[in-house]
Amino acid sequence: MNIVILKGNIVSAPSFGNLEIYENGYIAAEDGIIKYVGSDLPKKYKNCEITDYKDQLIMQSFADMHLHAPQYPNLGIGLELSLLDWLNTYTFPTEAYFKDTGFAREVYRKLAEDLVQNGTTRVSVFSSLHTDSTLILMDELEKAGLRGFVGKVNMDRNGGKDLEETTEESIRETLRWLDSCTTENIKPIITPRFTPSCSNELLKELSKIARERDLPIQSHLSENISEQEWVKSLHPDTTHYYESYKKYGLWNEKTLMAHCVYSDKEERKAMKDAGVYVVHCPSSNINLSSGFAPIREMIDEGLNVVLGSDIAGGSIISMFANTAEAIKCSKERSIRIEGKPKMLSVSEAFYLATSASSTLFNETPGFSKGNSLDAIVLDDQNLINAKHLSVRERFERAIYRREENAIKAVYSKGRKLF
Amino acid sequence: MNIVILKGNIVSAPSFGNLEIYENGYIAAEDGIIKYVGSDLPKKYKNCEITDYKDQLIMQSFADMHLHAPQYPNLGIGLELSLLDWLNTYTFPTEAYFKDTGFAREVYRKLAEDLVQNGTTRVSVFSSLHTDSTLILMDELEKAGLRGFVGKVNMDRNGGKDLEETTEESIRETLRWLDSCTTENIKPIITPRFTPSCSNELLKELSKIARERDLPIQSHLSENISEQEWVKSLHPDTTHYYESYKKYGLWNEKTLMAHCVYSDKEERKAMKDAGVYVVHCPSSNINLSSGFAPIREMIDEGLNVVLGSDIAGGSIISMFANTAEAIKCSKERSIRIEGKPKMLSVSEAFYLATSASSTLFNETPGFSKGNSLDAIVLDDQNLINAKHLSVRERFERAIYRREENAIKAVYSKGRKLF
Repeated sequence: MNIVILKGNIVSAPSFGNLEIYENGYIAAEDGIIKYVGSDLPKKYKNCEITDYKDQLIMQSFADMHLHAPQYPNLGIGLELSLLDWLNTYTFPTEAYFKDTGFAREVYRKLAEDLVQNGTTRVSVFSSLHTDSTLILMDELEKAGLRGFVGKVNMDRNGGKDLEETTEESIRETLRWLDSCTTENIKPIITPRFTPSCSNELLKELSKIARERDLPIQSHLSENISEQEWVKSLHPDTTHYYESYKKYGLWNEKTLMAHCVYSDKEERKAMKDAGVYVVHCPSSNINLSSGFAPIREMIDEGLNVVLGSDIAGGSIISMFANTAEAIKCSKERSIRIEGKPKMLSVSEAFYLATSASSTLFNETPGFSKGNSLDAIVLDDQNLINAKHLSVRERFERAIYRREENAIKAVYSKGRKLF
Repeated sequence: MNIVILKGNIVSAPSFGNLEIYENGYIAAEDGIIKYVGSDLPKKYKNCEITDYKDQLIMQSFADMHLHAPQYPNLGIGLELSLLDWLNTYTFPTEAYFKDTGFAREVYRKLAEDLVQNGTTRVSVFSSLHTDSTLILMDELEKAGLRGFVGKVNMDRNGGKDLEETTEESIRETLRWLDSCTTENIKPIITPRFTPSCSNELLKELSKIARERDLPIQSHLSENISEQEWVKSLHPDTTHYYESYKKYGLWNEKTLMAHCVYSDKEERKAMKDAGVYVVHCPSSNINLSSGFAPIREMIDEGLNVVLGSDIAGGSIISMFANTAEAIKCSKERSIRIEGKPKMLSVSEAFYLATSASSTLFNETPGFSKGNSLDAIVLDDQNLINAKHLSVRERFERAIYRREENAIKAVYSKGRKLF
């Protein structure tokens, strides 16, 4: 049995808005699974080796629940356009390059490394439509030590000549992909790009595959007003964007819908009723001039909200920075909107970026017993203080501010990734 | 004569919205002053040593025209409050520590280093009210190679018992400070904190000192609605915040006013007429839930707009990131406001962060002949590309995205600071 024991200032988010902090505490894992968290190390571990991080912070690592791996080379480029123009000008042409598996290998290896170095250990990722490159992406994420989901993207319309499949090809390749998956910690997720990219027949078939193989689903929803109008014109029998997914059965408690900036009360109720997850992507939503998602209302209404970088609509891979972006997005709404929906606190936003997705990994929030030991060790000793700061204050500061190279170690399933 | 010649991909902002780019170009300086920028090195430099940065970017370094040096230890802390509560809870107690000149020396040395390492070489800084610590701040900035302005803060009311001077003390200490300044590149600037901190008598005296000694002036204006109301209650004879400065003569073409979030058309016209500079501080304005300054309107109306980090209301020292924040702030307004005021482009925002303050340094925009050679050398070779990127695209990406340790060198007055 492999025992890992870390010592330091332990910070986790066991519930929305609450932090659990153990100063000079211990976290112990057996074969990667947390068995103890607290102030007094149980006797049974007395003779085990302890990795002592002294006064450093040991915090939950991040879950980035929406990012586009083949857009990684575009990070920071082309952010003067809004969604639909941006897709055609930058995103689709770049994704088309991933027909080249050698290029895919090179990009995806670097992406995986970048995620880990920024303290992201759990992900839900869109690949491109290319089956073999998708398998390479899964392989690279697995090798880097990440856990989560990757989807071969399905798109049988509106992708342009270099980024489109026929319906038949899309289904056939999806099955070939699913039958070829071998990674243990990176699992497949059914990924219709978004309604405008998928014919009704394709949506129907994907729903059938998801049901038969018990797979989760991810897509985009109500990111932008023009997109909503487009969907309505494609599905004139609907009043809401979500219905285009729901009517084909792509709408359940293992469905992740990115953005939901313009999801009104009815659409939000449909999410709540089905248990669909909202993936909030604040960096992307401001970069592409999409808007500001009603996260406070969603949380008050009982929806599951998680966080995503949405690379490359989002321009930052660090989930520290994306957590700060979520807070800023909530402040924008609090400034602007009558009745001032309450801003997200640091601990609330951190929960969205970590614990909120735990059910999707068959885990529970926080550093709970039975969870994988996924953690970031962060050194802030070089930052100058005017007075003694509590661990909570140091943790809150870390969301906004870290020195370069402040992340000293990242653990996934108890394994030190660097 | 000391000759410095740099070779690389040279990017500057000679006018608002325009970039001047020389791929594999040269920039030559004699005794720190730029004498040539272009593609073909003049014959006279033929036998001089050239520092060849190869395919790296050589861009103008940044001017951070509003930051609070003694708030540096608070960076990233306490951002759940709005302005007036935040001042009393976090800012004033921290500033009071700067009575201790040893602590001031330690903090200011680190701040100066942090500024340089992030590519900021020109500044306009608020110190605290402490004269000796202010002189230490000037000394540390000078030694680090920065240029610009530092002000001993004046506040004879509403600072609490640990951070207040009498009117007489404030004036006397201001004169002692001015008579003790010895730094060559860091110059004094008259700095009434803001109207609520300064009695009428103090404002009047400061105006007299500024006039007699021909000094620039910096303060805060219309950051927050409660603050505006407070000023109106203190100056019931005014309709606008700016009048509280103008009526005492603190309002001219060498005056910097931070924020101006709620400056209406009349207040903006008063700025335009007097040549007052607006210092836009987008990171601070969202962090403290202040709001979104009407920058596009200000520019269209012909105001001088420059950029500031406003540490520690702002939470990021990097002016790359603050430039991106200015773009995001403009997008917020473009999304929200009827008639959609045009967002700032990357090159427009970069101009605000660099060239827009050149007059205050007796220089002209861009890498112009006669300016000091102030530059950042930035390496982006490790970032993966899907296709060949132009220098312009790489420059735009750098505003949003840089690898850790991407800044390879920073020059000020032709001197390599690191």
